[in-house]
Amino acid sequence: MCQLLGMNANTPTDVMFSFTGLATRAAEHQDGFGIAFFEDRGLRHFIDPVSALHSPVAEMVRRYPIRSEVVIAHIRKATVGEVALQNCHPFVRELWGRYWVFAHNGDLKDYAPRLHGAYRPVGGTDSERAFCWLMQELAKAHASVPSVDELSCTLRELLPQPAAHGTFNMLLSNGQALWAHGTSQLYSVERRHPFVTTRLADEDLSIDFAAHTTPQDRVALVATQPLTRDEDWQAFAPGELRVFRQGQRAP
Amino acid sequence: MCQLLGMNANTPTDVMFSFTGLATRAAEHQDGFGIAFFEDRGLRHFIDPVSALHSPVAEMVRRYPIRSEVVIAHIRKATVGEVALQNCHPFVRELWGRYWVFAHNGDLKDYAPRLHGAYRPVGGTDSERAFCWLMQELAKAHASVPSVDELSCTLRELLPQPAAHGTFNMLLSNGQALWAHGTSQLYSVERRHPFVTTRLADEDLSIDFAAHTTPQDRVALVATQPLTRDEDWQAFAPGELRVFRQGQRAP
Repeated sequence: MCQLLGMNANTPTDVMFSFTGLATRAAEHQDGFGIAFFEDRGLRHFIDPVSALHSPVAEMVRRYPIRSEVVIAHIRKATVGEVALQNCHPFVRELWGRYWVFAHNGDLKDYAPRLHGAYRPVGGTDSERAFCWLMQELAKAHASVPSVDELSCTLRELLPQPAAHGTFNMLLSNGQALWAHGTSQLYSVERRHPFVTTRLADEDLSIDFAAHTTPQDRVALVATQPLTRDEDWQAFAPGELRVFRQGQRAP
Repeated sequence: MCQLLGMNANTPTDVMFSFTGLATRAAEHQDGFGIAFFEDRGLRHFIDPVSALHSPVAEMVRRYPIRSEVVIAHIRKATVGEVALQNCHPFVRELWGRYWVFAHNGDLKDYAPRLHGAYRPVGGTDSERAFCWLMQELAKAHASVPSVDELSCTLRELLPQPAAHGTFNMLLSNGQALWAHGTSQLYSVERRHPFVTTRLADEDLSIDFAAHTTPQDRVALVATQPLTRDEDWQAFAPGELRVFRQGQRAP
């Protein structure tokens, strides 16, 4: 199964991702990985259609302390679409002068939305098809740049449509907020300073919040599975959308 | 001044880029770099708004033999737009289910094209503005996916418009072809197997074509300055557009 991981912090935070745990699950997650970091409006986007165990890109991400407010990561076990660079999550498009990043866990059956707008899939996954449809519908729903609250309202209306075709755990961000939608398996937790004393650890993924955080710092995490045992990871209800801004869940 | 480098090969070719020469010109090219590799329809896009001398991303690109048919690289000396991730070339957008990559060398004065389509700049550069306008006009000019020849015709009509505002040396690709347009300083050369015996070398950039090439292999290179002294680098005439496919210049 694919693994999703999202992070939203209230201040650009040094984050280092470790994929070393993947060594133990190479057979299961050998079909690539991807990670996107927002820095203000800018975006770093790293993908590689090989196991994170052997990828020089994963090795670089592991060592580079990137200061980011929103991160979306994905580790892929191919189900729909061949193993190829164009099928690696997360996917990126531009809308209203901001980059949008999307990653999906799950399968959509018989999902062929009408794509008549400016967004077309490059690869062959149901996930990218859903992303293009979401971008198209967001663009149609708002004449000019909407607020995060307005975007959340629109997404709440749109997300049930792809979700009706199967499993649709997904992460979406434009750098201003992190939208997380769960249908079968997704958890979130909110954490505060000091992060450095508790390093998240998991077989597959770990995040190391570097030092230099301040008492005001907050961070929210979303993941396919809880990454720690001693924190209050909240499971998503089926079809639930959560919005994270400034390192915490928005009402 | 910024440096452009483009490559088009007739078969996915192991290419390694070296930015080590930048150490000697750190003061001049400290404002970041970027490089994009097409692999079939997929794209790897690496940018970093710091000197390639200190960038872990540059270090990774230098060591990773990526097999690619089209590469576009850019080393930035900021003129318009702050030094930030969102202002790093090359820029990427999607059109007709393919990624498009664009890098620009030069300045455009008083350039404010009407952007009423689906493409908006994320950063503050005149370059990204020109790219968004080109994408918008390409989308308007063709009802469905055009051939490379049709695209070349349309580009030949469009490119003089931004170029009228200043210097517009640029590289553009959708993975099928490499379009290169020069107004002041751009050169191209075509090379054939065996590449391994002649390593391109320059103070700023070098490309190492790894072994395992075959006698059928061809590659075309486009650069701001000739990268070698003993080859026949052909200067672009002002306003000239050259199209490269399958490792050679198309008629």
